[in-house]
Amino acid sequence: MTDISLDALRQQIDQLDSQLVELLAKRSQLTQQVGKYKSQVGLPIYVPSREAELLAKRRQQAEDKGVSADLIEDVLRRIIRESYQTQNNSYLCANPDAGRVVIIGGGGALGSLFVSMFGRSGYQVDVIEQDDWDSASEKFKQAGLVLVSVPIRVTQQVIKQLSNLPEHCILADITSVKSEPLQAMMKAHKGPVVGLHPMFGPGIKSFAKQVVVACEGRKPEEYQWLLEQIKIWGAAVFYTEAQQHDDAMAFIQVMRHFSSFVYGAHLAEEDPDLDLLVSLSSPIYRLELAMVGRLFAQDPVLYADIIFSNQKSIGLLKRFRERLDKYLKLVESGNKEGFIEQFRDIATWFGDYSKQCLQDSEKLLLKADDDRTLSTGI
Amino acid sequence: MTDISLDALRQQIDQLDSQLVELLAKRSQLTQQVGKYKSQVGLPIYVPSREAELLAKRRQQAEDKGVSADLIEDVLRRIIRESYQTQNNSYLCANPDAGRVVIIGGGGALGSLFVSMFGRSGYQVDVIEQDDWDSASEKFKQAGLVLVSVPIRVTQQVIKQLSNLPEHCILADITSVKSEPLQAMMKAHKGPVVGLHPMFGPGIKSFAKQVVVACEGRKPEEYQWLLEQIKIWGAAVFYTEAQQHDDAMAFIQVMRHFSSFVYGAHLAEEDPDLDLLVSLSSPIYRLELAMVGRLFAQDPVLYADIIFSNQKSIGLLKRFRERLDKYLKLVESGNKEGFIEQFRDIATWFGDYSKQCLQDSEKLLLKADDDRTLSTGI
Repeated sequence: MTDISLDALRQQIDQLDSQLVELLAKRSQLTQQVGKYKSQVGLPIYVPSREAELLAKRRQQAEDKGVSADLIEDVLRRIIRESYQTQNNSYLCANPDAGRVVIIGGGGALGSLFVSMFGRSGYQVDVIEQDDWDSASEKFKQAGLVLVSVPIRVTQQVIKQLSNLPEHCILADITSVKSEPLQAMMKAHKGPVVGLHPMFGPGIKSFAKQVVVACEGRKPEEYQWLLEQIKIWGAAVFYTEAQQHDDAMAFIQVMRHFSSFVYGAHLAEEDPDLDLLVSLSSPIYRLELAMVGRLFAQDPVLYADIIFSNQKSIGLLKRFRERLDKYLKLVESGNKEGFIEQFRDIATWFGDYSKQCLQDSEKLLLKADDDRTLSTGI
Repeated sequence: MTDISLDALRQQIDQLDSQLVELLAKRSQLTQQVGKYKSQVGLPIYVPSREAELLAKRRQQAEDKGVSADLIEDVLRRIIRESYQTQNNSYLCANPDAGRVVIIGGGGALGSLFVSMFGRSGYQVDVIEQDDWDSASEKFKQAGLVLVSVPIRVTQQVIKQLSNLPEHCILADITSVKSEPLQAMMKAHKGPVVGLHPMFGPGIKSFAKQVVVACEGRKPEEYQWLLEQIKIWGAAVFYTEAQQHDDAMAFIQVMRHFSSFVYGAHLAEEDPDLDLLVSLSSPIYRLELAMVGRLFAQDPVLYADIIFSNQKSIGLLKRFRERLDKYLKLVESGNKEGFIEQFRDIATWFGDYSKQCLQDSEKLLLKADDDRTLSTGI
């Protein structure tokens, strides 16, 4: 074979890739029609059984043709993600008689996402920002839902000012702690109350496959339409007690942010050559480093709020420090056997979850490898 | 529109997906021919400029057709990954006169990957395992390369036994620490010596886009063919000093493993409901939790070796503990301003890297979302 035939092969590959683009364009037109139909009749965007069936059929066909079944599944999942994003121009309105939707802090990152979603579902939406309080009481008069989407540190202060809402107006918040805001809402308002925590950031392109946590407050029958609306957008609703939620958040948010913060401080003070560290890191370490690095591209006030506002933080962090001391002594004394024994106990506690984590993270690292021209390389 | 027309739309989507499988099958045949040609003439598997050009053309076409350019790029990158994996049935042999390749520990996970790669490149490969030392000296007589691929804790002990290799035989190792093994190899063998550290685990399906660190030992002109061979497989070679490498590993491996270990211990001892934690976690936290969980699905002895064998570990870990104490006091005393100020200093140290981390990790989380039926959900 000569260089000319390598060129010929590459031209044939380019032709197939061009057909692939055409195919994606056609498919996108079809899924947009599906989306339109679904929004008219109020069918959910994400139907797990249809997705599973579609994938199973193509995996089978791929195997028959000698193509990797995992390849076709990965490619289709990526295409499906795009179709969720482009299908969602409008949604069925779960309650056309809801009255106006007022979003306090609707100009913020997550707030504006909700403004957009309610708007695309046919609701009349009003936004109240810090400077709008003078005109707020007029907006509240017609409100069927007031959603509080402001930074943690001002949430309670904002809620206290909401004592004059209409009787049947729903009062809800989307703060990442739940106990205190929920208590404050119950105190300020006599009507229906529900605490929400969207388990995602403002970067998502679709609610499909996402989770929203709901902490029941008062008169659930009156705020059911709100939860229905969230399901129509494609998300699942997960019910929990406010205190249980906050205890979990102490583990999830406070512990991780604080330890990433300390690790970042440690790096900055030790001052190694960051470029060299990245160059000498395998994909898994680059990912770990990126998980720390990403914290410091974000708003310090937000993270200070999260760490300083959870009352269980300090005790939990102190116990973490005590454990660190204990295991550091193990390392200092060269007690390898003790370390291994402890490792096995922890592995037992994690159970099958750790194996699942290993498999899933390996799969994710392969996906990260696909993009390996990125400067962080994750 | 009726339910019947939803079915009709879905049938059309299924037809397109079926065409997609056919297209992938054809493309795979073409790339296999490309791979065969490349292995015959010794062209590298991964050609960054060809990949960049191919992607740029399709992005442009996609934009012209109203298809997301990121979608086609993601899909093509995934397809390209597969083609690297299926192209690699055989490789050009960089040095047909090299003599036999002896891999000590070639039965292990990473060792057997190298056995396979050398074999598929036309080398005669011998494997020596623990029980084979009786017949080892016969194998060494014909060796052009001896590659040490054994656990850290026995690496030096194995190297000490390699004092009778042929004069021009290359002695190399792939241990994840480099200074002591390199010194030991220089002492045991008078011929060419090079220390290697593959920046990947045994789970990779192709060397394309991977990195192998090389620490120069002696007579680089005699081991150039080995580094050439690694490049033919698709990996890049990154040169560094052994001590510089090990200092970086103290940060990368020891710090991360130890802090993940302590976090795992903390969780196991606090004993929260793990299922609830996962349910209440957004994708980024699920990923962080999975990074901890995955550690405990692996061999405790391996991690004990890594943490206990790096001489700089203890000092580094102690300074980490001191910093943790310092910042914990900040939290205890409610000094939010101090925390924010410190946060900003660290962000300055990270510089643009943190923004890049945030962008890349967001992109990766979207990919993780595609697979959202997984139990860990990452």
